[in-house]
Amino acid sequence: MSNMKTEPEMDWSQLFASRTALMTPSALRELLKVTSRAEVISFAGGLPAAELFPVPRFKSALAAVLDQHGGKSLQYSITEGLPELRDWIALRFSTPRLRIAHENVLITSGAQQALSLLGRILFEKGDRVIVENPTYLALLSAWRPTGVEFMPALCDARGLRVEKCRPLMKRKPKAIYCVPNFQNPLGATMSLPRRKKLAALARAHSMAIIEDNPYGELRYSGRALPNLLELDAPERPGSDFSSRVIYAGTFSKVLAPGLRVGWVIASKPVIEKLALAKQAADLQTSTLNQYLALELVRQGFLEDFIPVLRRHYGQRRDAMLEALDRYFPKSARWTKPDGGVFLWVTLPPGADSGHLLEAALNEGVAFVPGGEFHLNGEGKNTMRLNFSNMPPARIEEGIKKLGGLLRRGVNSIS
Amino acid sequence: MSNMKTEPEMDWSQLFASRTALMTPSALRELLKVTSRAEVISFAGGLPAAELFPVPRFKSALAAVLDQHGGKSLQYSITEGLPELRDWIALRFSTPRLRIAHENVLITSGAQQALSLLGRILFEKGDRVIVENPTYLALLSAWRPTGVEFMPALCDARGLRVEKCRPLMKRKPKAIYCVPNFQNPLGATMSLPRRKKLAALARAHSMAIIEDNPYGELRYSGRALPNLLELDAPERPGSDFSSRVIYAGTFSKVLAPGLRVGWVIASKPVIEKLALAKQAADLQTSTLNQYLALELVRQGFLEDFIPVLRRHYGQRRDAMLEALDRYFPKSARWTKPDGGVFLWVTLPPGADSGHLLEAALNEGVAFVPGGEFHLNGEGKNTMRLNFSNMPPARIEEGIKKLGGLLRRGVNSIS
Repeated sequence: MSNMKTEPEMDWSQLFASRTALMTPSALRELLKVTSRAEVISFAGGLPAAELFPVPRFKSALAAVLDQHGGKSLQYSITEGLPELRDWIALRFSTPRLRIAHENVLITSGAQQALSLLGRILFEKGDRVIVENPTYLALLSAWRPTGVEFMPALCDARGLRVEKCRPLMKRKPKAIYCVPNFQNPLGATMSLPRRKKLAALARAHSMAIIEDNPYGELRYSGRALPNLLELDAPERPGSDFSSRVIYAGTFSKVLAPGLRVGWVIASKPVIEKLALAKQAADLQTSTLNQYLALELVRQGFLEDFIPVLRRHYGQRRDAMLEALDRYFPKSARWTKPDGGVFLWVTLPPGADSGHLLEAALNEGVAFVPGGEFHLNGEGKNTMRLNFSNMPPARIEEGIKKLGGLLRRGVNSIS
Repeated sequence: MSNMKTEPEMDWSQLFASRTALMTPSALRELLKVTSRAEVISFAGGLPAAELFPVPRFKSALAAVLDQHGGKSLQYSITEGLPELRDWIALRFSTPRLRIAHENVLITSGAQQALSLLGRILFEKGDRVIVENPTYLALLSAWRPTGVEFMPALCDARGLRVEKCRPLMKRKPKAIYCVPNFQNPLGATMSLPRRKKLAALARAHSMAIIEDNPYGELRYSGRALPNLLELDAPERPGSDFSSRVIYAGTFSKVLAPGLRVGWVIASKPVIEKLALAKQAADLQTSTLNQYLALELVRQGFLEDFIPVLRRHYGQRRDAMLEALDRYFPKSARWTKPDGGVFLWVTLPPGADSGHLLEAALNEGVAFVPGGEFHLNGEGKNTMRLNFSNMPPARIEEGIKKLGGLLRRGVNSIS
């Protein structure tokens, strides 16, 4: 063949499945790539504070894993997860009313995989699922390609407005997805009466509840509330697990996200199908990282580390709330979360947080415009602010800059 | 509410998507769960020899990662993978003719995830894909739920019979999936003329080639052959990467499978869609394990460890071939692989390796009946034997037992 001959380029767009057209890069994601630069004050991601990770404890726990388990910790292991880790999770979430066995637990590669696998086993074109509006962005990207229709449900400062979900029942949603504690992006927490109402509503309509609880342990004020998983437990104490709640948990926020270890707690038929989907998806979650998580939790790592996180993140939340009070225009409102890593600002109607972001990036401050988290084009005047990943002084500095932009009329609302 | 009241059980089967019916547990998988018991001589899985893992090197590499990168190695990182690891892979696979940039590389949670994500972006109902028959079992489970139709292609001792694929082109398959080196399950290697023919066939029909190469480095005899990725490189040296080959690689067989670190090399449009699918699937592959793999390869781990694997696995292959010669009936035939971890036995027509397995498990020996790997109910008289996971003496013992069962007429073929 001659060097002059030019091969026709492969036209990949002809080869992609139609669902792949639903996978599109967000312009925002490109815009926010700058946030990885150290000089940027980023309120954008949901990142934990890496400077708080007790690196020497991870190092010694890894050494202990390799000393104790040797090559086994580097070898293939079973799809469902390490039996000892499944047992530990089953025990941690069991209550007198709720008896969880290790067969009710599947280890996943982070909670994101749990959600993605649930989408695969549950949804197809013609199905409907209720989601909080606004909701977790990567949930939408995980489930959209299944063809499921999202039914947005209203939220306020006490979380999902369950009463407003009743009319949606006519269209027979298969499931409702919610983040009851310190919701992403609102920072709102669902009240106990609403949790009970939601459990009853799901029971009355044979609807599954997908409870996503990545932030539950990160509470800085107020009293912990029971999980939906627990509220839906059978009336007879001691009976086997049987629940319409599918619970997604993760070590990402209380241990370290770079390990990618999460879990699902659910009825056996759900776990069985999820395990088949997981085997096809990635065979199993990293053996080494599962042993590492197990070693750390057995050493009492969570009892030591969660209070550290609560103290620091609580201070950061307070620093952000104080700075908002001081620097933001009076016309803006924001949530006062009891925990988690996000709060939510609402600017006056007509303001555009997308414009604000452009100006803010020029001053080295990043956040996520709230419209992104909405299903129906609403929320252009809203914004999500993360407070876990920056120390208090930089939080104040960043909020001051944002407030200055708002007061100088970037959104004509000063 | 009274304790006497029994809640109706949730009927999960009503809630599953129709594709979930295609996810069914294999009876075989249950049967083979016994193989994790230490006393069982297992030729069943595709497991590396964990006793060969240089555990102290992993331990010191992990310590080095944590010393060097601290909390960053435990933090979230970008979906596409660590830039340094993508660069390393790009460089390792680049040749004078084939210039791979890091934008052509995506890090995945093992090669299984690479295959699963490819299924998601490429296939839907109405699409067709050619696969070797027999082929890799977990490929079928990963792609079946997409609705794609599998078109089986004939193989022999020199791999895929490319000539036999020509008539299949009329039905316009989107892609062909193949394992050119030491194929799973046959152990066969595709000859160079066939590789060239396959590249030309794909080019002529605008078909993608999905080249899965987990075992390529594990060669014990014969000369290494160029990858399809390289054979399909543009004619003009130095031009940018543009290929109809999508290459799936993994550290599982040359480093350790428990890390779950693999990769895809492909044209940018494919990598971009795969990255979106990956973000929805699990956000990213473990940061810690990517840093660990990077640290090890930079230390020259592969240059030390691959020769160790070749020596040991080569001895195990030889031990199995010798034992087969000695103990199996003359009517049986088997492949003589130049590498990898499997060989393939064909018993006379009418024999049933499923029956043999039942008898073998009673004697503490496991393998996988070959029918499992076939698309069309063929291969009941075949069996796949793994030789990497048992030392030579146990290989001889196990083959002797299987041979004894065959000679005693378990399959009436003695």
